[in-house]
Amino acid sequence: MPGIFISFEGIDGSGKSTQARLLAESLRARGLTVCHTREPGGSAGAEEIRRLVLEGDADRWSTETELLLFTAARRDHLEKTIRPALARGEVVISDRFADSTRIYQGLTRGDLRDTVDRLHALMIGVEPDLTVLIDIDPAEGLARAVARAGKEMRFEGMGLGVQEKARDGFLALSAAHPARFRVIDGARTPDAVAADVLAAVLARL
Amino acid sequence: MPGIFISFEGIDGSGKSTQARLLAESLRARGLTVCHTREPGGSAGAEEIRRLVLEGDADRWSTETELLLFTAARRDHLEKTIRPALARGEVVISDRFADSTRIYQGLTRGDLRDTVDRLHALMIGVEPDLTVLIDIDPAEGLARAVARAGKEMRFEGMGLGVQEKARDGFLALSAAHPARFRVIDGARTPDAVAADVLAAVLARL
Repeated sequence: MPGIFISFEGIDGSGKSTQARLLAESLRARGLTVCHTREPGGSAGAEEIRRLVLEGDADRWSTETELLLFTAARRDHLEKTIRPALARGEVVISDRFADSTRIYQGLTRGDLRDTVDRLHALMIGVEPDLTVLIDIDPAEGLARAVARAGKEMRFEGMGLGVQEKARDGFLALSAAHPARFRVIDGARTPDAVAADVLAAVLARL
Repeated sequence: MPGIFISFEGIDGSGKSTQARLLAESLRARGLTVCHTREPGGSAGAEEIRRLVLEGDADRWSTETELLLFTAARRDHLEKTIRPALARGEVVISDRFADSTRIYQGLTRGDLRDTVDRLHALMIGVEPDLTVLIDIDPAEGLARAVARAGKEMRFEGMGLGVQEKARDGFLALSAAHPARFRVIDGARTPDAVAADVLAAVLARL
C-alpha cells in the first residue's frame, strides 16, 4: 500500500490532538505502520523553530515573521519526517498542517491569506490526502483549552472572538476543498468522535 | 536629511565588515547618526535565528529551509532595526543584505535564484539605496577567511570553487543594477579602500 498523509485540524480545545493519537492507536492495532507527528515541529530542526516561535513574549515576532518561521519549520518537517515516511508506505498522521497557518497567520492575526497561499505554493506545495476537521463550539473549545493551560498558552490566550473567527475559517476551508476535508462533530465523547474518524479514514484507505 | 540605507556585500574575506565599520566611523566623525548593523542578525530575534542557522551541522537544514530562516531573520531585522532607523533619518549601514541570499542560497548552494527573488518580492520587498560591493580575488578572500576561522566557519569552509562562483554572481548582480551598486577594488590597504568607499557614499548623500 502506498503511504497516505492525513492531517488533523480544528480550533484550540477541539480535541484534535486526542483524536490524532486515538487514530494512530487504532490503525496500529490493525497492523498499519503509522508516523504520528505534529506541527509546528515534527522534526528535530522544526521543534527548535517551534520553541523559538512559541516561547517568549506574544508580540516578539510580527505575523509575517511568524509565518516565515512556521513555513521554515514545515519545510524541515516535510523533508525530514513526512516525505520519508510516505516513501516507506506509512500512514502519516499530523496534528495540524498548512490549514492552521491559513487560519492563524492568514486570518485571525492579520489579513495575510493571499500571502500565506503564495508562500505555501512557493516553498511547500503539498497538501494532505485527507484532512480531518474536528468541529466544536468555540466557547466549549476555549473552556477546554484554558483548563489545560501550559507555557504555550499564547495562541489559546486570544479569546472567544479569535476562536469564532478560526472556526468559521476552518469550515470555509472545508467547504472550499470538500474532496480533501472530512468534518467530524467534536462535541461528543472522545470514543464516539474516534469511531467517526476511524470510519472516515478507513473509507479513504 | 531623510535616512539612507547602505549595504555592504562581497565574498568571504573581501574585507566588507571592516569597510562597513570604517564607513560608520567616518560618517559619525562627520556628525551623522549611523545605525551599523549586520545580517544574518541585526535585531534580537534575528540574532537568535542566526544562531539556529549557523551553529550545528552544515547539512542540518536544506537550502530551502535555510532560505526561509534567513528571510524570517531579514523580516525581523527590517521591522525592528532598519525601518525605525530610517524613519529617524539615520544612515543605516548593513553588513550583508538580500544580495547575499541571492548569491549563497540562490546560486552557490543549489539553483534557487527564481525562488529567492519571488520570496524576496513576497516577504521583504525592500532594496538598499546603495550597495557597496567590495571586490577581491577569490583565492585571496579565502586565505583571509581561513586565517580568522571561528565557529561560524560553515560558509567559509566551502572552498575556492564556491568563492569564484560567488564573486561572479556578485559582479553579475552589480552589472544588472548599476544605479544601486558601487564596485570597489578590495585588493589594497584598508585605508585606501575606505577612502574610495567614503567618496562613493558622500557622492550618493
